Amino acid sequence: MTTAAPLTALALNCTLTPSPGESSTEIMTDQVLEALGKHGVTGRSIRVVDLDVMPGVEMDMGAGDAWPGIRQEMLAADILVIATPTWLGQRSSVAQRVMERLDAELSETDDEGRPETFGKVAVTVVVGNEDGAHGITAGLMQGLNDTGFTIPANGGVYWNGEAMTTTDYKDLDETPSAVASTMQKLATNAAHLARLLAQQGYPPPA
Amino acid sequence: MTTAAPLTALALNCTLTPSPGESSTEIMTDQVLEALGKHGVTGRSIRVVDLDVMPGVEMDMGAGDAWPGIRQEMLAADILVIATPTWLGQRSSVAQRVMERLDAELSETDDEGRPETFGKVAVTVVVGNEDGAHGITAGLMQGLNDTGFTIPANGGVYWNGEAMTTTDYKDLDETPSAVASTMQKLATNAAHLARLLAQQGYPPPA
Amino acid sequence: MTTAAPLTALALNCTLTPSPGESSTEIMTDQVLEALGKHGVTGRSIRVVDLDVMPGVEMDMGAGDAWPGIRQEMLAADILVIATPTWLGQRSSVAQRVMERLDAELSETDDEGRPETFGKVAVTVVVGNEDGAHGITAGLMQGLNDTGFTIPANGGVYWNGEAMTTTDYKDLDETPSAVASTMQKLATNAAHLARLLAQQGYPPPA
Amino acid sequence: MTTAAPLTALALNCTLTPSPGESSTEIMTDQVLEALGKHGVTGRSIRVVDLDVMPGVEMDMGAGDAWPGIRQEMLAADILVIATPTWLGQRSSVAQRVMERLDAELSETDDEGRPETFGKVAVTVVVGNEDGAHGITAGLMQGLNDTGFTIPANGGVYWNGEAMTTTDYKDLDETPSAVASTMQKLATNAAHLARLLAQQGYPPPA
Repeated sequence: MTTAAPLTALALNCTLTPSPGESSTEIMTDQVLEALGKHGVTGRSIRVVDLDVMPGVEMDMGAGDAWPGIRQEMLAADILVIATPTWLGQRSSVAQRVMERLDAELSETDDEGRPETFGKVAVTVVVGNEDGAHGITAGLMQGLNDTGFTIPANGGVYWNGEAMTTTDYKDLDETPSAVASTMQKLATNAAHLARLLAQQGYPPPA
Repeated sequence: MTTAAPLTALALNCTLTPSPGESSTEIMTDQVLEALGKHGVTGRSIRVVDLDVMPGVEMDMGAGDAWPGIRQEMLAADILVIATPTWLGQRSSVAQRVMERLDAELSETDDEGRPETFGKVAVTVVVGNEDGAHGITAGLMQGLNDTGFTIPANGGVYWNGEAMTTTDYKDLDETPSAVASTMQKLATNAAHLARLLAQQGYPPPA
Repeated sequence: MTTAAPLTALALNCTLTPSPGESSTEIMTDQVLEALGKHGVTGRSIRVVDLDVMPGVEMDMGAGDAWPGIRQEMLAADILVIATPTWLGQRSSVAQRVMERLDAELSETDDEGRPETFGKVAVTVVVGNEDGAHGITAGLMQGLNDTGFTIPANGGVYWNGEAMTTTDYKDLDETPSAVASTMQKLATNAAHLARLLAQQGYPPPA
Repeated sequence: MTTAAPLTALALNCTLTPSPGESSTEIMTDQVLEALGKHGVTGRSIRVVDLDVMPGVEMDMGAGDAWPGIRQEMLAADILVIATPTWLGQRSSVAQRVMERLDAELSETDDEGRPETFGKVAVTVVVGNEDGAHGITAGLMQGLNDTGFTIPANGGVYWNGEAMTTTDYKDLDETPSAVASTMQKLATNAAHLARLLAQQGYPPPA
């Protein structure tokens, strides 16, 4: 059966807080990975700020650049989870750094003009104490789509609090029900779509 | 004294709800006009959806177009307040209609290349039951600035509730304190800046 | 074979120009429909501004509302093409009106909580004489995804000219090669993904 | 006379390219500083990527953090120029890092609740080989405004080429006339407004 095929997910946690600091983004990311786990997806999360992802838009920016290693894990995974906190209503500088590095995928295509990301599914996780999630989710989906990823229905989950307040996701007593149900839909859809595309990838354009 | 000079404000309420339906956007707009009133600013609000602002990007789209009338009021005012609800994380179609009509100001310039909007101050009001305010405020400020308006420090106020919840501003028991204090700053700054620019307008570019 | 199954597409042209005025958005939309046609997709385009899509966020806003008719066509189609011009760097008021009406799909779900849009694929067409396409594409993809659509890899095509210039797409001598090749990828991927989802739709969340 | 008062500007060039690499952003920034120079503004530019601006949202992130030094220069200047390249339609990770650090200004207020940035003017410079400028300008203006800066009329200048092409600003034979005239307006307005605010700063909210 379709559902039996094992899948893998790589989550890039783009918090500004180095390990071992607490991270709302990590908590939400772990919940998404757990939801994916129910669908036969084995996931792993990287806290990007702990590594030296160098500025630039090449695959490899030279000695000490951590991106090539992350990229290998991404290419080995079926599902990419981009998770970011919200600062001034925008994705973090770490998330933008990751997207800049994905830009290189646009020019790394096979003989048919298909990037190596084709056939992979991407989903988004956005968290903040108030406002910004729609705009950030939009920018991530567009950038991920442009660099070759497919976005499943309801492919984004987010949480933020009331306007101009300061509660963090990590300080909530429990997962809000709307967030929890969105995560279930996201995971169900991402796993389903990744399986379909693993079995029948996009043909070359004609 | 500077503060003695009377000023006027025009608020464009871009709710999707025709009169006399309840409108969170109207409530928040009225609060901003009240805050401006403390600074000698006489304000008036128009619920744009009640009028036939025709699609297009000319000053006057022909018979029945309500925009030319609104435009005259705008040109007579010192401060423009754009107020919009949030739908799918974006400004309303009514607000976008207004911005499209403002686009014509770009080509309506004096002998020095200055649009008639130069010297006017614009502020924004964004309301929704959850998320979207940063992106909407951003787009409004950029569009208003591009069409000739000056944006005072802390020129935007907004409110939205917790992610994926459904409380409306009109149903709150009281104005949240962060919103109230932001309105005071917005009003103080908008009135101050409008007075400065009324006294000493931008010179022609050199 | 998979490729034999016929599919249908509905394109919503969100130009501000009523028929029979020339529309760059229409030209680009027709090109996308033609590209889809090579993959067994029968398409039809509606110029939304010609109809009275009423303001609001309900399925049916009452007497004279054209949306319920458009919605029936959308529900009958496998692929939705949203096409918009760019005004002040944003999607048109007509496109925003369409998105506002799609908002109602969020609450119109089956017994399993799946909206009727699940299983449908959406792609975007954005055109303007200069700048705005990334932001508009982003907002459309997020909104379409949130209301249940799946976005295929490279699911957006756009064109705009050099910054602050005024050439329109309809006045180009020929289709720029980057646009033409993007359309082919978009069509190939949209048709492929729509077929996969038609055969094996998303399961209910678990 | 008003125009006699000397002013200073600090430009933060947020290119991803370390010195001494060529930078389109630097070229455009230098042109803006030159335009400001005609209005008695003495400017200086910092290539932020050359320094170690640490991730975080505090004023000072500890040993080795370059931000406190940049911040002192910013507080000493009347005009802040934020200049960024465009990657995936968004501001650079370096620009986002700068904005994250400006976030701390929100909580660093005087006895009257006014941040130290009040009274300062901010303008934006956005450059890329194709598309993204409106969205980036919008996000920068909103973020700068929220952290206390005032945005003069026509406070943004940008350039990008035709969609999906690859010409860089640094490779243009000459400055496009629309860009040059926008820079003159931006400089005239920024200097004028900075002088007004230097003479008569915002009063405390009342």
